[in-house]
Amino acid sequence: MEKLKRNERVGALMNILTRNPNKIFSYSYFCQLFNVRKSSISGDVAILKELLEKLDLGLVETITGSNGGVKFIPKIKKEELIQTLEDLSIQLSNPERIIPGGFIFMLDILYNPEIIKKLGLIIANKFIDKHIDYIVTIETKGIPLALMTAEVLNVPLVIIRKNIKITEGSTVNINYVSGSTKMVQTMSLSKKSLKENSKVLIVDDFMRGGGTFKGVYEMMSEFKASVVGTCVLIATKFPEKKLVDNYISLLTMEKIDEEEKKVILTPNFCKLNKKLKKFSK
Amino acid sequence: MEKLKRNERVGALMNILTRNPNKIFSYSYFCQLFNVRKSSISGDVAILKELLEKLDLGLVETITGSNGGVKFIPKIKKEELIQTLEDLSIQLSNPERIIPGGFIFMLDILYNPEIIKKLGLIIANKFIDKHIDYIVTIETKGIPLALMTAEVLNVPLVIIRKNIKITEGSTVNINYVSGSTKMVQTMSLSKKSLKENSKVLIVDDFMRGGGTFKGVYEMMSEFKASVVGTCVLIATKFPEKKLVDNYISLLTMEKIDEEEKKVILTPNFCKLNKKLKKFSK
Repeated sequence: MEKLKRNERVGALMNILTRNPNKIFSYSYFCQLFNVRKSSISGDVAILKELLEKLDLGLVETITGSNGGVKFIPKIKKEELIQTLEDLSIQLSNPERIIPGGFIFMLDILYNPEIIKKLGLIIANKFIDKHIDYIVTIETKGIPLALMTAEVLNVPLVIIRKNIKITEGSTVNINYVSGSTKMVQTMSLSKKSLKENSKVLIVDDFMRGGGTFKGVYEMMSEFKASVVGTCVLIATKFPEKKLVDNYISLLTMEKIDEEEKKVILTPNFCKLNKKLKKFSK
Repeated sequence: MEKLKRNERVGALMNILTRNPNKIFSYSYFCQLFNVRKSSISGDVAILKELLEKLDLGLVETITGSNGGVKFIPKIKKEELIQTLEDLSIQLSNPERIIPGGFIFMLDILYNPEIIKKLGLIIANKFIDKHIDYIVTIETKGIPLALMTAEVLNVPLVIIRKNIKITEGSTVNINYVSGSTKMVQTMSLSKKSLKENSKVLIVDDFMRGGGTFKGVYEMMSEFKASVVGTCVLIATKFPEKKLVDNYISLLTMEKIDEEEKKVILTPNFCKLNKKLKKFSK
């Protein structure tokens, strides 16, 4: 490649690091790519770091040692977090979304990359210091949200299946009682999915009683994994006592009334960012 | 925000556009964000455009008219495409991946955001001019690849379910014969999932006989959607005659032999990029 000017290198670094959140790039990788010395790259990184902090778009972290290098940790701005969750509450509170049985239609949200990417970033921001090894979800509707969280944290996704699949080799199977249907169901996970003693974050779309999540906890203990957190897009206010503790929901479904045609959802700002306490109702 | 210098604005533009592929940002959005005139933003965009082309990282397109603005179309470099698919062929050809029944274990690949993001980019690059409205997939293993393709093209994802779900409202259901199991199965899609007369791209992980895809085609015709293309990560060489025409696979599974413990996979470079014909075997 033709030799680049400093500004061009900073732009190129911005593009490469932004496309690969939380991935460590060695200085020598960039030295080779741009055909310059390490001291030049250090200078470029310093400029980038300052700029990203000034813009409040994320952090550039330099890692020392033999596996050292530089990585980009994207961040959602406080204002954007508030706006995103408030918009979402309004959209999802539309009574036309009510589906018989106490559900709301939200596939258009859950499968929209632009929205779900922001929500994944919000979750990743919350758990960035927890040294997560895997994001775990249970099929199907929460998969996009879980994947976007995994993408920001740069860790693999694990999808628990609701049926035993012959195409995944030998599996561990757990019976659980779904809170919504009160029926005994089976969840299944390929034995090769997780390394032992991993730290996992469970991400899903919806929690009512927490029965499914209890099953996921049990599955994780079969793999000797420790659950560092559980995060869902929406949890219902009732039952207040869920079958799992220590979960975070981005939104709370305060009420869904099919007769009255009314849905009330509220964002949980303070659980996501202590500085946002004053925004929470 | 404190007023930024040109270089800083170019860096900020790079970050924002890179994080939002194929999303149109109006010039006035950036004028407001940076508190500068439109002529300054035009200058910044020109610099960015030149830089991205020089680096071969993607295109910046300016759209004129009332809905006008600027968008970033990410691109995978030819060398990276070749490297990615060759590495993948080698990894997946490991005989330890063989699962009884003629399958190979590939969850570690399919659920790895870093790999799947590159593959999604390869698919999106191939179909960038086709004005796709939705990416359609059928649960479960192809969802991450489909989502990453949707993310690059900035269009919604549609996930066809293999069972009828009460949480998705009224659905259209199609019976189909799975090529692998030869059993009649039902696929189901919420009526609200697709607007009529849409152009869709089908993305999935694996194709053997094509029976499932034939079902998806039928489902799409129920929604009056036209299928612009079908793209899978792996298609088996045999049966050569699939139940759907006009599909692309990133890799071909030439052979899988449980007795001999042998898997042979080859990349399909020329189907992805005519210039890569010479790299194909």
